[in-house]
Amino acid sequence: MMRTLKVALLGCGVVGSEVARIMTTHAADLEARVGARVELAGVAVRRAGRPRPGVPEELITTDAESLVKRPDIDVVVEVVGGIEPSRGLILSAFENGASVVSANKALLAADGAALHAAAAKHGVDLYYEAAVAGAIPLIRPLRESLAGDKVNRVLGIVNGTTNFILDKMDTTGAGYSEALEEATALGYAEADPTADVEGFDAAAKAAILAGIAFHTRVTAADVFREGITEVTAADIASAKAMGCVVKLLAICERSEDGQSVTARVHPAMIPLSHPLASVRGAYNAVFVEADAAGQLMFYGPGAGGSPTASAVLGDLVAVCRNKLAGSTGPGESAYAQLTVNPMDDVVTRYHVSLDVADKAGVLAQVATVFAEHGVSIDTVRQQGRDGDASLVVVTHRATDAALSATVAALRTLDHVRGVASIMRVEGE
Amino acid sequence: MMRTLKVALLGCGVVGSEVARIMTTHAADLEARVGARVELAGVAVRRAGRPRPGVPEELITTDAESLVKRPDIDVVVEVVGGIEPSRGLILSAFENGASVVSANKALLAADGAALHAAAAKHGVDLYYEAAVAGAIPLIRPLRESLAGDKVNRVLGIVNGTTNFILDKMDTTGAGYSEALEEATALGYAEADPTADVEGFDAAAKAAILAGIAFHTRVTAADVFREGITEVTAADIASAKAMGCVVKLLAICERSEDGQSVTARVHPAMIPLSHPLASVRGAYNAVFVEADAAGQLMFYGPGAGGSPTASAVLGDLVAVCRNKLAGSTGPGESAYAQLTVNPMDDVVTRYHVSLDVADKAGVLAQVATVFAEHGVSIDTVRQQGRDGDASLVVVTHRATDAALSATVAALRTLDHVRGVASIMRVEGE
Repeated sequence: MMRTLKVALLGCGVVGSEVARIMTTHAADLEARVGARVELAGVAVRRAGRPRPGVPEELITTDAESLVKRPDIDVVVEVVGGIEPSRGLILSAFENGASVVSANKALLAADGAALHAAAAKHGVDLYYEAAVAGAIPLIRPLRESLAGDKVNRVLGIVNGTTNFILDKMDTTGAGYSEALEEATALGYAEADPTADVEGFDAAAKAAILAGIAFHTRVTAADVFREGITEVTAADIASAKAMGCVVKLLAICERSEDGQSVTARVHPAMIPLSHPLASVRGAYNAVFVEADAAGQLMFYGPGAGGSPTASAVLGDLVAVCRNKLAGSTGPGESAYAQLTVNPMDDVVTRYHVSLDVADKAGVLAQVATVFAEHGVSIDTVRQQGRDGDASLVVVTHRATDAALSATVAALRTLDHVRGVASIMRVEGE
Repeated sequence: MMRTLKVALLGCGVVGSEVARIMTTHAADLEARVGARVELAGVAVRRAGRPRPGVPEELITTDAESLVKRPDIDVVVEVVGGIEPSRGLILSAFENGASVVSANKALLAADGAALHAAAAKHGVDLYYEAAVAGAIPLIRPLRESLAGDKVNRVLGIVNGTTNFILDKMDTTGAGYSEALEEATALGYAEADPTADVEGFDAAAKAAILAGIAFHTRVTAADVFREGITEVTAADIASAKAMGCVVKLLAICERSEDGQSVTARVHPAMIPLSHPLASVRGAYNAVFVEADAAGQLMFYGPGAGGSPTASAVLGDLVAVCRNKLAGSTGPGESAYAQLTVNPMDDVVTRYHVSLDVADKAGVLAQVATVFAEHGVSIDTVRQQGRDGDASLVVVTHRATDAALSATVAALRTLDHVRGVASIMRVEGE
């Protein structure tokens, strides 16, 4: 007789309702692919009594803790998000012998090691493809397809909300607030957009990607984070003048000696010729550079109910197969124990825009400060008007520490009225 | 004590030597990722006595059959290519209880079902990520990440040689022969380029992709195949005039009722705005469209020693982990048993270029023939000169059968001197 695997679903919002729908409509396919019936055995929600089309009323419960402890549950799907109660529920599921499929980037980036250890202790799986870049397969390619290679760099657009806003600013000339308003109106930004626009969401994803790519532990706290709220229409225009576009990038890099890594999220200018430059709207894309594989790119919808559900379902099939085989998939791989270096050590190029007095000798003064701090200048563009002027300096590669010291010194110059913006230049 | 898994390598050419090199230089990483030592225990080559830097002389043998039958071998890596002796060696490996990692697209496309059945019978793995698009993770994402989704279409550039040639024709205006010569001189095309330029290589990959994507059996013989040898500089120029570029595409589609599929390889015009249009040189890229995930794209180096070795090593880590766990990964999934429809049933758009007499009424004659066969015309471009003229017709969507019948009828018209070219238009 064919076995039945029972699934508890925690959360029935945008993603959860899609997971439930696909489990029902594709039940025959799932059965054929898993080799067992996969049954939705319970759905935990915060508030009962709402209409949930396609989800049988008798499956709904507000008691998530009891659901994950039910002895018949084989797999728990967690699409609630946030740290608690998700963390406690997942740990209860492990103790109960259930494998877990989670889309919870914040939790995994904050406390992934403890969760992986708990899963390993109880001999069950923790899968989380949906936590990074929605439907785009990234976790599995990084931890399985590239398991025999050495990844040196991961560079990606992993937040759809901010990409939508920056793309809107780029195509229409709108300012940040105006573009955010449109994103909110269209449902691309939440009522409180902080997690997206301040880069918290992207930083969590960067931590997860860096950990898997480099086989070491990286938490969200290790990731340098700068959001897009300070990006101005002038920055976008300045990027255009350089043949660039501004994107919020997550960048995870191995140092040249291979012994340390950095992980950071910030807006950056990238050349129009770079494949990431043409990633429009709320789409995501991630570049991976590995020793043997070379440059790979993965592109697709990074959020939304259906794409995220697709990733959850792929993981569900995998953990169900593992359950049937009495095995588990690859767990945490953190043997490399590399140091995570601070932002100061990151080496990149910079676009620095200064408001200066329109006087002879300003450029010489500014150039001297850059030179004194060991930051070599690539190009300078000077624009003057009615006694005021602006200087746009693009540097060669330098450390973040050297650039910060340079900027601090620039601010003390008589003729420098202000530092209008500093933006990193990547992808060259 | 840590276990040692022993690997037999069949083939030590461009790919094999890279596999051997990485296995040696990354031995510590492989051990940490697998959880066991992974030892290169023997290397079968056709001709002994050649210098093989980095491969210890005592591992070399010309007796592949004895190597795969050695009782201590846990995994066989086959990077020889071709149908025999690879097929026999892989079957021997299975009988001997060894799992197999293969990069052999021709064999898998011709006889995959029998190989999968043999692997299943002996409780071992057959992995073959390297058989399609080199380092780009495609097999694993399709058969695992999208295992809970419904794939409707796979559209890709899966042959680097032909993409290099077409890209060269596009950027330089060169003819086919000239571009092929350059590809050969630069090592992008083999001395006998037939497998690439006639589309056999791409057709094998299309068969493998279609089989996995649609959970059904598709062999190379099921794939309609047309190479790039008839593509002319005039075709490329005509594509440009339409805002298109010519690419050799592998296209696997599910029919609208979901009950049948088609698989084909042929040159096609795609709009410059399509992401595949900007895939340059010898790179590969594959679009996947699925119900829930939406549009995904995978991009990277599709061939070459290192990229292919990266894919082989990823599979090697996976099958080694399975060996240790006493389990196997997902095998063949062909439960859907869909019909593979012939090319006649494929629906797409066409670009038809005709040499006609520069006489009044030609266009009316031609238009009537299209209408009589139910092929609706989108645009017509007419160019006349000294009594000769050309007509370029771009159609709306129609079946291949209707288009073929139309072309046959056009050839019988008095005023039509010849059909200069027919090309499909995709990606719109």
